[in-house]
Amino acid sequence: MVLVSVMRIAFLGPSGTFTEAALKAFQARGVVAEAEAVAAANPREAIQAVRAGEVDYACVAIENSVDGPVTPTFDALAEAEGAQIYAEVDLAIEFALMTRGCTLAQAKSITTHPVAYQQIQSWLGEHAPGIEFIAASSNAAAAQAVAEGRADVAAAPVHAAEIYGLDVQADHVADVPDARTRFVLVGRSGKPPARTGADRTSAVFTLPNRPGSLVSALGEFAMRGVDLTRIESRPTRSGLGTYRFHVDILGHIDDAPVGEALQALHMASETLSFLGSWPAEGLTRVSGRPDEAALQQARQWLEHIRKGA
Amino acid sequence: MVLVSVMRIAFLGPSGTFTEAALKAFQARGVVAEAEAVAAANPREAIQAVRAGEVDYACVAIENSVDGPVTPTFDALAEAEGAQIYAEVDLAIEFALMTRGCTLAQAKSITTHPVAYQQIQSWLGEHAPGIEFIAASSNAAAAQAVAEGRADVAAAPVHAAEIYGLDVQADHVADVPDARTRFVLVGRSGKPPARTGADRTSAVFTLPNRPGSLVSALGEFAMRGVDLTRIESRPTRSGLGTYRFHVDILGHIDDAPVGEALQALHMASETLSFLGSWPAEGLTRVSGRPDEAALQQARQWLEHIRKGA
Amino acid sequence: MVLVSVMRIAFLGPSGTFTEAALKAFQARGVVAEAEAVAAANPREAIQAVRAGEVDYACVAIENSVDGPVTPTFDALAEAEGAQIYAEVDLAIEFALMTRGCTLAQAKSITTHPVAYQQIQSWLGEHAPGIEFIAASSNAAAAQAVAEGRADVAAAPVHAAEIYGLDVQADHVADVPDARTRFVLVGRSGKPPARTGADRTSAVFTLPNRPGSLVSALGEFAMRGVDLTRIESRPTRSGLGTYRFHVDILGHIDDAPVGEALQALHMASETLSFLGSWPAEGLTRVSGRPDEAALQQARQWLEHIRKGA
Amino acid sequence: MVLVSVMRIAFLGPSGTFTEAALKAFQARGVVAEAEAVAAANPREAIQAVRAGEVDYACVAIENSVDGPVTPTFDALAEAEGAQIYAEVDLAIEFALMTRGCTLAQAKSITTHPVAYQQIQSWLGEHAPGIEFIAASSNAAAAQAVAEGRADVAAAPVHAAEIYGLDVQADHVADVPDARTRFVLVGRSGKPPARTGADRTSAVFTLPNRPGSLVSALGEFAMRGVDLTRIESRPTRSGLGTYRFHVDILGHIDDAPVGEALQALHMASETLSFLGSWPAEGLTRVSGRPDEAALQQARQWLEHIRKGA
Repeated sequence: MVLVSVMRIAFLGPSGTFTEAALKAFQARGVVAEAEAVAAANPREAIQAVRAGEVDYACVAIENSVDGPVTPTFDALAEAEGAQIYAEVDLAIEFALMTRGCTLAQAKSITTHPVAYQQIQSWLGEHAPGIEFIAASSNAAAAQAVAEGRADVAAAPVHAAEIYGLDVQADHVADVPDARTRFVLVGRSGKPPARTGADRTSAVFTLPNRPGSLVSALGEFAMRGVDLTRIESRPTRSGLGTYRFHVDILGHIDDAPVGEALQALHMASETLSFLGSWPAEGLTRVSGRPDEAALQQARQWLEHIRKGA
Repeated sequence: MVLVSVMRIAFLGPSGTFTEAALKAFQARGVVAEAEAVAAANPREAIQAVRAGEVDYACVAIENSVDGPVTPTFDALAEAEGAQIYAEVDLAIEFALMTRGCTLAQAKSITTHPVAYQQIQSWLGEHAPGIEFIAASSNAAAAQAVAEGRADVAAAPVHAAEIYGLDVQADHVADVPDARTRFVLVGRSGKPPARTGADRTSAVFTLPNRPGSLVSALGEFAMRGVDLTRIESRPTRSGLGTYRFHVDILGHIDDAPVGEALQALHMASETLSFLGSWPAEGLTRVSGRPDEAALQQARQWLEHIRKGA
Repeated sequence: MVLVSVMRIAFLGPSGTFTEAALKAFQARGVVAEAEAVAAANPREAIQAVRAGEVDYACVAIENSVDGPVTPTFDALAEAEGAQIYAEVDLAIEFALMTRGCTLAQAKSITTHPVAYQQIQSWLGEHAPGIEFIAASSNAAAAQAVAEGRADVAAAPVHAAEIYGLDVQADHVADVPDARTRFVLVGRSGKPPARTGADRTSAVFTLPNRPGSLVSALGEFAMRGVDLTRIESRPTRSGLGTYRFHVDILGHIDDAPVGEALQALHMASETLSFLGSWPAEGLTRVSGRPDEAALQQARQWLEHIRKGA
Repeated sequence: MVLVSVMRIAFLGPSGTFTEAALKAFQARGVVAEAEAVAAANPREAIQAVRAGEVDYACVAIENSVDGPVTPTFDALAEAEGAQIYAEVDLAIEFALMTRGCTLAQAKSITTHPVAYQQIQSWLGEHAPGIEFIAASSNAAAAQAVAEGRADVAAAPVHAAEIYGLDVQADHVADVPDARTRFVLVGRSGKPPARTGADRTSAVFTLPNRPGSLVSALGEFAMRGVDLTRIESRPTRSGLGTYRFHVDILGHIDDAPVGEALQALHMASETLSFLGSWPAEGLTRVSGRPDEAALQQARQWLEHIRKGA
C-alpha cells in the first residue's frame, strides 16, 4: 500500500478569486509543487489553518497598488507567532462586471470584496451611478452570490464568469490603470529561503510607551544603512495612539546589517515578530553591503584582539 | 437690512452618525460656534466642500482605536492642498443594533459602515452567525436603510433608533471594550491655532525613489528629538512599492525642533503637505524642548558671532 | 598736523623667526597692511597683547605637520574671550644650523625652540650625537644666544645667521621632508571675514561631566553633515580626565549647517568659545551645502506655514 | 642547576624619576612581580625594547592633568604594532628644586624634563625670574646633570636629591595644585586583562581622506552608546591636515558595544591599532550596557530566526 502525501494550500475562496490565480502563478514558477487548494473565507482563516497545521501554506493578498496594505492579512500575521512569509508574486488586477441575465443599467446592487470595490468606485460612479454595494468576502464569493440571486452584479476576475455561469457586461474595469496586487505564500515558521541578494524582510513590533521610542527604533535601521520601504502603524486595540508597527525592509535576515538591526530592535521593543525573509519580485537592487568580505575581516580582527592571538 | 452669516460645517450624514455627535462635542467645547450642519456622503466629499469654499469646516473621523486610520480621510487630506486640521475630539464608540419589527434571530442582513462592521464582527459571529453584511456609507445611513426596508438590522449610535423610528435590539455592542474614535475639524489652510505645549502636527510627503530616502527623512525628526507617534505608508497608486508617507508628530509647527525638522524634510522630499498643528486631546506630555530659553540664548549667541557684535 | 596711525602686530621674536617670515607673507598677500612688528616672548604674550589692545594683531604658529598642534597657542586662545582668528598662511619649514666660529663636530650644545628640536632630532642623532639641547623661546632667540656665547649651535631660519652674524654649517635640515607650519593672524573678536566657500572655523568647548556627552556633542556636527578635520582634548587642569575640546571645522559660521551645529553645541556645552571663521589655505573643497537655494525655499515654506499665509 | 628568570621592566631613567615611582606603585599593588628595572632614555626607547623582546614591560607616562597627553608615548605606541597597554596607575606630581651648593637666587640655569618645566614655569617666573631652561630627558637625568655641574638647579622628585647628593631648596613646587600623571604598563600584544566592568580601551586609527570620514567614524561609537573620554589628532607627518586619531573609550573590548564599534571602525579606517583594554584607575562608572542579558537574548533570537529553529 502506498500513502501519497499531497501538499495542502489555503487560499481565499471560493474558486475564481485572484488569490487562486496567484496560487497558480506560484505553482507555474515552481515555488510550490502540485497541491490541494483549500478554500478559506478570509486571510485570517487561511493563516490560522497554517498555524494549526491543517494546511502547509496559505496564499494571501498582502498589498495592492491602489488601496495599500491588506490589513486583515497583516493583522492575522501579527496576531500570533508560528507563521512566516516564504515567497511573493505580483499580479495585474482588472475586474470584469458580470450579471445573471440583467444589464448593468438594470442592476440595483453590486457585490464584490471591499478592496475591489475601492478600485472600481469611480468607474461605477460614471457607468452605474447610485448602485448599492454589498460587501462580499471575496470576488469569487461575489460571483457566486450573483449566481444565487443575492445581488445583481459582481466585480470579479473574468474567469469567475465561466465558473459561475454569468454574463460579462464589462471587462478590464479599473479606476487606476496598471493596478497590481502582491500575494505572499505563508508557511509555518522555519528557516527562511536562502539569501538571493534581492530580498525583502518583514517584521512587526510594539514599543514601550516612551517619548522618542519610535524614532529611536527606526534609528536602528538608519544607523546601519538598512533601507525601509514601508512602515505601517496598526492600532493595538488597547486605546487611541498605541500602535503595532509593521516594517518592510530591503535585504535578508542573513545580511549582516539587517540581522544586527533586528537584533537591536529586539532589545528596544516590547514585542518583535519576524514575518520572514524572501526573494523580492522585480527588485533589481541587490541587498546587503558590498563589503561582506571587509566585514568578515573586521570580525576576525576583533576575535583575534579579544583572544590576544 | 441685516445679513446674518451662520457658519456651515460638513459632516458624515445623514443625521444620527457618530460624526454628528463629534460635531456637537466640538460645539459643546466652544471650538466652533453655532453652525449649520451639512450632511456629506463621505469624508472626501466633506473635505472637498471645505476646499471649494462651500462650507467653513468639515468634521471627519480620522482614526479609531480598533481599525486604525480612517484611510479615506487621510487620502482626501493628501490629495490636494488647501485643507488643514484645526482641532480634534475623541469619542467612545459603542453600537446599538436596531431593527424595524423583526428580532435579531429573524434578521438575514445587517448594514453599517465597514469600519463599524470591523468593530462588531466577533459579536455578530456569536449572536447572529451567518448574517449577510451590506456596506453603508455611514451608520446613520444604515439606520435609514433599515427604516426603508433595504436591510434587516443596522449597527448605529443608539440615538439613530429614535431618529429613524427603529427598535433597539442590543446596545453597547463592541468587540473591543473602550473603543474610541478621533474626529478632526478640517478648515481651509491658514494660520494654525496657537501652540498650547500639548499639540499634534500632521504632515504627508513623498520621497525621491532612492535607497535610504525613508530612513534619512525620518532621521530629520530623530536628530532633533522630535517624537513621531504614527507613520503610515499609503500607495501613490502609481505602482506597487511607491508610497506617500503620513506622519503624526508630537509638538507644534511653532516649536523650534518641529519647524526645523519639517523645513529639512521640505528639502529632502518630492512633495510635502502640512496638514495642521492643533491642540492634542488628552495629551499630558508637553511638547517642545524644555530648553526653549537655552535655544533662544544659543540663537542670540550665533547671531552675535556672525555679526561680530 | 597729521597723526599717522600705523598698525601694530605682535610676533614671536626676536627678529629672524619663522613667525616673522609668516607675518611678511601675510603682508605680501595683502592680508594686512604695513605694520610695526612687535616682538613677543611666546604665543600667549602675543595673544594677550591683542586682548589688551596693545597690538592690533598677533601672528602665531598654530600647527605643524611634524609635531601637530602648537599647544601654547591653543591654550592661549582658549584661556579667555576676546581674541579670534582672521587668516592663515602655511610655510615650508627647514632649518639652518649656525655657529659662531666652531664647527658642528666641535659643538657641545645646541639651542632652538623645542618644537624645532623635534623636527631635527634624528638628523642630530646622526650628525652630532650626544650634543646637549638647551631650550630657547624661539629659533631667533636661539641664534641670538649663540651670538652671545650661551650655546654653540642654533637651529633657526637661514636668514637669522645674517641677522646675528653667524656661520651656516648646514642648511635644509629637517627629519621629515616637506614639513610645513601653519600660522594664523589673531585679532580682537569681531565680525568674521566674509565666507569664501573654502573656509575653516575653529571652536573650543567644555562639556558637562556626563556619560556620552562628547559623542553626543560631536553628533551635532555629524547629523548636519558638517565635516571636522581635527579634534584635540586639552586638560582643563582640574584633574585627570577632564578636558577642553578643540575642533577644526570645514566651513564658515555663515554656512547654515555650521551655524546650526555650533548653536546646538552652545546648548549642550558648559562653555563654548568661537575662535573664528577664515579663508582656508589650499583648501579646494568648497564648504556649504550645494542646496542653499533649496534651504532658502524651505525656510520660506516654513515661515508661510507658521503664518498661515 | 636552577635558572631563575626575573622579569625585566623598562622605565624612564635614571633612578629617581616619577616613572620609577610609578613602577614601584605597580609592584606595590601586585600588578607586576619583583622585576629588574631597566632605565630607558625616553618612552619610545622603552616601548621599542618591549617590541624587541628585550624587556617584558615598559612603564611610561601617558598623560598628565596639566599638560595633557604625553605625545612621545602616544607616538611610540602608534608607530608600530606589537605593544599593548595592560594597566594604569595615577600619581600625584610635585617637584622639589635641588642644587649642588648654590641657592636659588644664585642659580643661572635650571634643568628638568620639558613636561615638568610646563608645570613649574609660573612658580619660576615669580621665584627665579630670568633663569635659563635646559631641557633634560628626564627629571632624574636633570638631577644627575646638576650633580655633574652641567646646570645649577634641577626640578625633580624629592627623593632624587638623596640619590644624587643634592640640596633641596624648595619642595612641593607646582603651578597647579593636585597635578596628577597617569602611567601605563605596556607589554607585548596579547590577550587583554579580564573585563572588570570599569575599564578603559584605547585605539589609534587613520581614515581615508574623504569629507565626513571623521564624523562618520566617531558615529560608530555614538550609535552604539559607547562613551569616548578623549580624542587626539596627531599629525601623520605626511602633510598639514592629515592626522592619526587617538581615542580613549570607556569600556572593554569584550563589552559588546565596544567590540562592535571597533569592528565597524576597522571597516571604515585605513589603519586601526588596538592599544589595549585595562582596568581604569578611579573609574567608578561601570562600563558596558546594563542589558548584557538582553543583548544575549537578542542574539539568540537572531540566531534562531536565521536557522529557522
